Amino acid sequence: MASTDHGGGEEVIRNKQVFLNDYVSGFPEESNLYLTTSSIKLKVPEDQSGKDAVLLKNLYLSCDPFMRGRMQRDLPPDRPELSSYSLGSPIVGFGVGRVVDSRHSDFKKGDLVWGSTIGWEEYSLIPNPEDLFKINHTDDIPLSYYTGILGMPGMTAYFCFFDIGSPKEGDRVYVSAASGAIGQLVGQFAKLIGCYVVGSAGSKEKVELLKTKFGYDDAFNYKEEHDLDAALKRCFPEGIDIYFDNVGGKMLDAVLVNMRLHGRIAVCGMISQYNLEQPESVQNLSAVFYKQIRMEGFAVYEHYHRYSKFLDFVLPCIKEGKIVYVEDITEGLESGPAALVGLFSGRNVGKQVVKVAQE
Amino acid sequence: MASTDHGGGEEVIRNKQVFLNDYVSGFPEESNLYLTTSSIKLKVPEDQSGKDAVLLKNLYLSCDPFMRGRMQRDLPPDRPELSSYSLGSPIVGFGVGRVVDSRHSDFKKGDLVWGSTIGWEEYSLIPNPEDLFKINHTDDIPLSYYTGILGMPGMTAYFCFFDIGSPKEGDRVYVSAASGAIGQLVGQFAKLIGCYVVGSAGSKEKVELLKTKFGYDDAFNYKEEHDLDAALKRCFPEGIDIYFDNVGGKMLDAVLVNMRLHGRIAVCGMISQYNLEQPESVQNLSAVFYKQIRMEGFAVYEHYHRYSKFLDFVLPCIKEGKIVYVEDITEGLESGPAALVGLFSGRNVGKQVVKVAQE
Repeated sequence: MASTDHGGGEEVIRNKQVFLNDYVSGFPEESNLYLTTSSIKLKVPEDQSGKDAVLLKNLYLSCDPFMRGRMQRDLPPDRPELSSYSLGSPIVGFGVGRVVDSRHSDFKKGDLVWGSTIGWEEYSLIPNPEDLFKINHTDDIPLSYYTGILGMPGMTAYFCFFDIGSPKEGDRVYVSAASGAIGQLVGQFAKLIGCYVVGSAGSKEKVELLKTKFGYDDAFNYKEEHDLDAALKRCFPEGIDIYFDNVGGKMLDAVLVNMRLHGRIAVCGMISQYNLEQPESVQNLSAVFYKQIRMEGFAVYEHYHRYSKFLDFVLPCIKEGKIVYVEDITEGLESGPAALVGLFSGRNVGKQVVKVAQE
Repeated sequence: MASTDHGGGEEVIRNKQVFLNDYVSGFPEESNLYLTTSSIKLKVPEDQSGKDAVLLKNLYLSCDPFMRGRMQRDLPPDRPELSSYSLGSPIVGFGVGRVVDSRHSDFKKGDLVWGSTIGWEEYSLIPNPEDLFKINHTDDIPLSYYTGILGMPGMTAYFCFFDIGSPKEGDRVYVSAASGAIGQLVGQFAKLIGCYVVGSAGSKEKVELLKTKFGYDDAFNYKEEHDLDAALKRCFPEGIDIYFDNVGGKMLDAVLVNMRLHGRIAVCGMISQYNLEQPESVQNLSAVFYKQIRMEGFAVYEHYHRYSKFLDFVLPCIKEGKIVYVEDITEGLESGPAALVGLFSGRNVGKQVVKVAQE
């Protein structure tokens, strides 16, 4: 990587970055994103603009479905972490980085961090690093896990499933997008407490993974089922207690008919709907009334303060081999755009990560 | 009323009854029901068939939307209180009666009771009176209230609103079918704890009632709003915290768009859907995810064990004039069929009751 030293240790280096071309409607394509190169000083600015900032060397970037939302024009500004991307800056998401310079008292050079405000670039200046999590556990644990099982998707799976699903032994649990970053964990959490768990995914390979790797009791390829209601009745002849919804739309509609009395629907995502101009309609919502179903949406950012509680649970599970995690790691920022848009056609197998640099 | 004494005190009396002609699809009509007259001994049978039974003289019968469900053919038998009516017996619902004879140790002649298993007839033999509630409070309280504010609709309004709605002072509450048996109470409960409350109803007269009698802060006639979303935005420029849903369908769809973050939707009924062959579809369910809405269906029969707690709250409210209740009482069993089907065109103003006999 070319670099120039301007004297005084202020090394200037090339910084590859990924920008959004224009706002997206419908399915995103690789051509909606482009790679460019700017330059960056490997030092936090010494003037007011760098006060309390840190400079990160980015190691892993996370591809997450919610990023599709931010590619849309004119999102309401009330939640900055879900607002429209600026076309004038690299896109932003979850990632893992190493501090290369810091003017913040909580961070020092060499610290490893993860967070939600990492630019899709080789180096990021983070003006408000308070939102970053410091990484304290790295023994025998891949650093990339902090974009997945030990990061946002892990917390989402854990708190959404346990808080909203209220699972207990023997419950019949259905998970859609079940081999994804979140789904693969929900299935394993459910098995840990003795639930009967069925997952759906979009390929034969993923269905095999569900049954052989993640311990799902049963699984089906939703793309090969012309009648989702029949597929669910086959897997759940006595109905579903908990539906962990990652997809929304038609699948949710079919699930509603198959819920049991007092069933819970934990709405974690609706990936099938993100790229539609008009959302799919739901016909069977009256089941909520007839079966006293509880349905609730989940936002992980409201649970970040419980991160250490989550780690206390999940780190031992990983170390004891009780929980496994499958990642789909692509190499190099150049391959990031394809990896990101691939989420929406289900190209990834497991958690999609972009490796930007060697640890 | 003609009666015959066969000696031994076994008075036989004519018993007018309301039967269902045939199972209903679509909107029920008066002609779906017919009146007939049988005869009944004014004594609980002394053989095994009368063991533990009571004989009631029915005073008030309650017209409730759920009865439309029971007019349908082939309902699943898992919940007898919601199963299809038998064409060979009078229809059954909530009502108030006086015990005229009893072979059950908990009931004696003269007791007043209310319950969910009262036939639409002048006298009912109740083989399992355990499900009846004894009426202990009658001072200055109309007996008909036990079909409404002091009965099933009262408990529904109270437990559904407080349990699922989790209201607190300042919450913005929207109630549909707001002048009905349940809605009029929800609005008043919400005002008692300092909520801002808006209701909708289907006539100018009802809208006036909401504002002048029940203390709603605002109200609108949904039949005169061509754009429900606009009506809700006008009444709730900052959105809705709690929606008490009595109607489902299009209104629910419009509400979803106008819910606030962490809003609650208490699904108490879906009267707009009961008569449709195909339920109306809902487009905006993704709001549950984006706004972390909690939506839950309610069934009052699961809360009957809390009846005395409810009475402790509501009886003083009535006596102190803090809560009022508007009933629409029609006289005579003959007028029952019209009153019952009138629910579905909104003919009633307030709780629809049929007075069968003088107290």
